Amino acid sequence: MNFRKLERIIAMSPAQTPKNRKRGWIIPIGGGDRKVHTSTILQRLVELSGGSDARMVIIPTASQLDTAGQRTRDVFRELGLSGIEIVDLETRADCERPEILETLRTATGVFFTGGNQLRLATTIGGTSAAKVLRSGNASGVHIAGTSAGAAFVCEHMIAIGKSGGTPKRGMASLSPGLGLTNRVIVDQHFRERDRLGRLLTALAYNPFATGVGVDEDTAAFIGPDDVIEVFGSGGLTIVDPSELEFSSMADTNMGAAVGLVGVKLHILLAGDKYDLNSRQAYPIGDANHP
Amino acid sequence: MNFRKLERIIAMSPAQTPKNRKRGWIIPIGGGDRKVHTSTILQRLVELSGGSDARMVIIPTASQLDTAGQRTRDVFRELGLSGIEIVDLETRADCERPEILETLRTATGVFFTGGNQLRLATTIGGTSAAKVLRSGNASGVHIAGTSAGAAFVCEHMIAIGKSGGTPKRGMASLSPGLGLTNRVIVDQHFRERDRLGRLLTALAYNPFATGVGVDEDTAAFIGPDDVIEVFGSGGLTIVDPSELEFSSMADTNMGAAVGLVGVKLHILLAGDKYDLNSRQAYPIGDANHP
Repeated sequence: MNFRKLERIIAMSPAQTPKNRKRGWIIPIGGGDRKVHTSTILQRLVELSGGSDARMVIIPTASQLDTAGQRTRDVFRELGLSGIEIVDLETRADCERPEILETLRTATGVFFTGGNQLRLATTIGGTSAAKVLRSGNASGVHIAGTSAGAAFVCEHMIAIGKSGGTPKRGMASLSPGLGLTNRVIVDQHFRERDRLGRLLTALAYNPFATGVGVDEDTAAFIGPDDVIEVFGSGGLTIVDPSELEFSSMADTNMGAAVGLVGVKLHILLAGDKYDLNSRQAYPIGDANHP
Repeated sequence: MNFRKLERIIAMSPAQTPKNRKRGWIIPIGGGDRKVHTSTILQRLVELSGGSDARMVIIPTASQLDTAGQRTRDVFRELGLSGIEIVDLETRADCERPEILETLRTATGVFFTGGNQLRLATTIGGTSAAKVLRSGNASGVHIAGTSAGAAFVCEHMIAIGKSGGTPKRGMASLSPGLGLTNRVIVDQHFRERDRLGRLLTALAYNPFATGVGVDEDTAAFIGPDDVIEVFGSGGLTIVDPSELEFSSMADTNMGAAVGLVGVKLHILLAGDKYDLNSRQAYPIGDANHP
């Protein structure tokens, strides 16, 4: 059955949150996260999703390895969950199967493994599975993704790009993602793969969003109030272009450096917070820490 | 005064339409439009915007030529308007000036000239002017753009790309646009510059949106109910990937052709309609023409 013919297509922007509910947390993780029960990142995800009563769905679509979903499932078991399902969406047709959509509808938490974010976008984008995930998050289902999975949660996703500190035209290519949030553009393996340049490039096209660069074994827990809390062992780089005075992107040739004047940068660690609304950073010791 | 500090940043998705209002029309025009009072496109825009009482704002930011705004203004005069202002946003600082924001707030119609869409995105994106334009359209202000201006009205904008019929990885580069609508990805000068390949490429990353390819001297009038009506002398190519079975984008090398299975194509002419909700095309003679 093709649910799309039965239900209206929801425009690709974050789905509306019903009045009596809160949006679920959105949790981009920077890759390389240790799949162990001592991981503060996974502990926090399980806690948000209902503890031992959580119904966790693992989507390993981005990965070419059969084991990606299983390793993640094993850690969730060690953390006390029994309600875990691996939903391997291999084709767009899988994303229309009623039993799969039903499993997605009953999840309290969703975890996208790493791999290739374009595999996620081309397989899931625009399908009924995408619709269920989006309306689920709008109604309170928490959605996490690591590496490629972290990129995919955004409206504007860095599909591919190059390493290096200086932004250059063409250094980052965008694709529409799952669209759980429009406010951030995420990049992952941030320090390890030297990605400040490509995140600056992505923001330089249209400096409306906040850049969130996530190091390995680090996560940005984005709450329903759009306040980010950092978990994990690395850094979270916030790139705020809202006071940008100038971007040379429109007149820059492919491959040439892009000039930017007025970017604000914060490096945050575990326990620190960032309010996407006010664009204020709150280190853990700050008196106004939300 | 920096309005951004005073007002909350609205997340980059179409702004919410207040309960008692309708969204304004969104009007991408394919370029090469004849700047003459006999143009059915400009006549229809003036009619929607209030006829002789319209307050039209022309934004020539995309263009390098000083004359772009003036030629457009002259045609609006011939069509009986007196309330016309050229608002040349040259810098991001211009986009924060109170008198400019006030002019934008009182417009009933807005017209973006052609030129370079990245100049529009880098100058206006994320500023208070963008915020006023977005909330204005959500509350009933009609926004038209020709050529670069047409690309800019979308959430996902084709920033640059190459010609040719076959889609190839890297053939189209996306950038966030003004974001009046998420439902369509627009391409302009469509037949004249042989752009089916790049529009297919843009859709192949994540096949959730509808592709709208606008020929020169042709316009897609997108109504508040998301039904498109075609005006002008050329064709409107609708590319519907919603039934796509497969996209090879994730495994395709840069520059290589992308495989797509199941794309639906419609070529529509003046008077024909297309319903973005139901994804149905209604030629002018059709019994169910909305």
